[in-house]
Amino acid sequence: MSVAVFSEYCLINKLKQLLPAVNFIEVKKSDLSPLYTAEIILADFASVGPHISQLEKAKWIQGTWAGIDALKQYIDVKNPPKFAVTRSSGTNIGQLMAEYVVANIVFQERDYLEVRENQKKCFWNSGPYLYDFRSISELTIGILGIGSIGNIIGKTLKYMGATIYGYGRRESLPLENEEYQHISQYFTKANFKDFLSKVDYLINVLPSTPETNDILGNGVLENCKGKNTVFINVGRGNVIKDAEIVRALNEKWIAAAIIDVFEKEPLPEDSPLWKQNSVFLTPHVSGPSRVQDIVKQFKINYEKYLENQPLSHKVDFEKGY
Amino acid sequence: MSVAVFSEYCLINKLKQLLPAVNFIEVKKSDLSPLYTAEIILADFASVGPHISQLEKAKWIQGTWAGIDALKQYIDVKNPPKFAVTRSSGTNIGQLMAEYVVANIVFQERDYLEVRENQKKCFWNSGPYLYDFRSISELTIGILGIGSIGNIIGKTLKYMGATIYGYGRRESLPLENEEYQHISQYFTKANFKDFLSKVDYLINVLPSTPETNDILGNGVLENCKGKNTVFINVGRGNVIKDAEIVRALNEKWIAAAIIDVFEKEPLPEDSPLWKQNSVFLTPHVSGPSRVQDIVKQFKINYEKYLENQPLSHKVDFEKGY
Repeated sequence: MSVAVFSEYCLINKLKQLLPAVNFIEVKKSDLSPLYTAEIILADFASVGPHISQLEKAKWIQGTWAGIDALKQYIDVKNPPKFAVTRSSGTNIGQLMAEYVVANIVFQERDYLEVRENQKKCFWNSGPYLYDFRSISELTIGILGIGSIGNIIGKTLKYMGATIYGYGRRESLPLENEEYQHISQYFTKANFKDFLSKVDYLINVLPSTPETNDILGNGVLENCKGKNTVFINVGRGNVIKDAEIVRALNEKWIAAAIIDVFEKEPLPEDSPLWKQNSVFLTPHVSGPSRVQDIVKQFKINYEKYLENQPLSHKVDFEKGY
Repeated sequence: MSVAVFSEYCLINKLKQLLPAVNFIEVKKSDLSPLYTAEIILADFASVGPHISQLEKAKWIQGTWAGIDALKQYIDVKNPPKFAVTRSSGTNIGQLMAEYVVANIVFQERDYLEVRENQKKCFWNSGPYLYDFRSISELTIGILGIGSIGNIIGKTLKYMGATIYGYGRRESLPLENEEYQHISQYFTKANFKDFLSKVDYLINVLPSTPETNDILGNGVLENCKGKNTVFINVGRGNVIKDAEIVRALNEKWIAAAIIDVFEKEPLPEDSPLWKQNSVFLTPHVSGPSRVQDIVKQFKINYEKYLENQPLSHKVDFEKGY
């Protein structure tokens, strides 16, 4: 069996190590022919997207990314590809994002980015504010999006003692189920403002869909005013406009923001977000597909494919993820 | 009952809220008399230390700090105080240190202090190194000191998937016991070098005792060379001299250091540690006694005291903690 690989990651060597019997063919932009004849394709969605309607031999595309935004413009949802498209997810993106969230909450609560600035000045500041921070166990944390990633984040924070509130589009959630036992209260569209008004941290994990567009826009963050919430976005940048984040900070609806995903990426150099001292920006790296993860997940799905078993993390284009 | 309070923390208001029936008397440096007549004293060890041999009425001192270093010079271990001395511990110092350790591992692995510098330059660096980091679940983490604090740190890291190696002075540890189930392997003095050579992170949680003095000194960190270990010190600064940390970095025995406790505190302005880019320094704040914690723990011990029950976290001066 041969597999066409079309990716900006350096995958080939690790793929060959893991699956020595498979013939991996690297697709170069200068010669796309292996793409059109392949039954199996492993590709970045942005690379393969423009060609997706011409892949007549393809039976399965394994993507290297978790989000399918880069693919959407090339897909007619009423007439999606006949072959399977699987996204990179599950191996441990949830865990990577959980680590990101935990670490950033601690740095935020304890002002350690400021402590780093003090270090540069050789300044031992042991002022009382450094003894007056909140532990994760004292926080109520709202998670927007209770899918597999949101649940790993929630369970990790719950393990560390936080109280977890969940928000999702399902009308109700069986909180008694093992899967949701970390969630103390579940909220929906009907009581969204109530949700926002009760959380010390608001963590967005929602995918980009028409329903989630601007869900935190239009002044709705004013509901966070009483709690002076910290906003963390590891989901998608479509939930709020950059200018609205700046407004929420200026109006003191939110205390700070930790943002990994943006309206437009890369974040334009003239974005006002860069220079906000109470904003920590990272360049879409909270839960990346790492080379080792992509390769591992390809192997799992490849073995399923050979045995005609259902593939993991199959994209549902109608749902949009 | 009245209680003398001699502390630099602002405790009185919260104490009165929590125990309204108790008469709390604030001891001022200008008038120490309430200290000498009190049966119960709540005090910073550095404040009460110089007076400890003259406290003839005292039956119990609750300290506000976890470490008793500031007290030691005033105590004759062969003839320790007849009254009980309890240290501040347990409420959640272990949890606070666990948060510190987890957060700093993530920032270290992902180079987020550098990402902050990029932010200042409005520089969206999504270079491949940001996709090539280790998850906590891929790390082997050695914990020097398997007491209550070391165990909370270890259990938290284990929950996040790390492999935990423990080091202690007991000859062996019943790893099958619930309490130690997070530990995969236990090491002692006899195989200390082996321990050092196997860990991606080395976390010191040991208290300052004659036995732990310079335990990481004299070139022993050379054993970390193969793993390029990251050293985290949240225990005490007596385990290694500042100059030895710099040497271990220069010799590339260790990759980086995250240090909260030092040979001498505050860290002198001319210490070479300040300016090391691969060192993150914090001013002894990883697991501080916070006002809310001190007050809570005092209440618990106060109730035990009234009922003649054994007090929690009683200092054993012979053991040194």
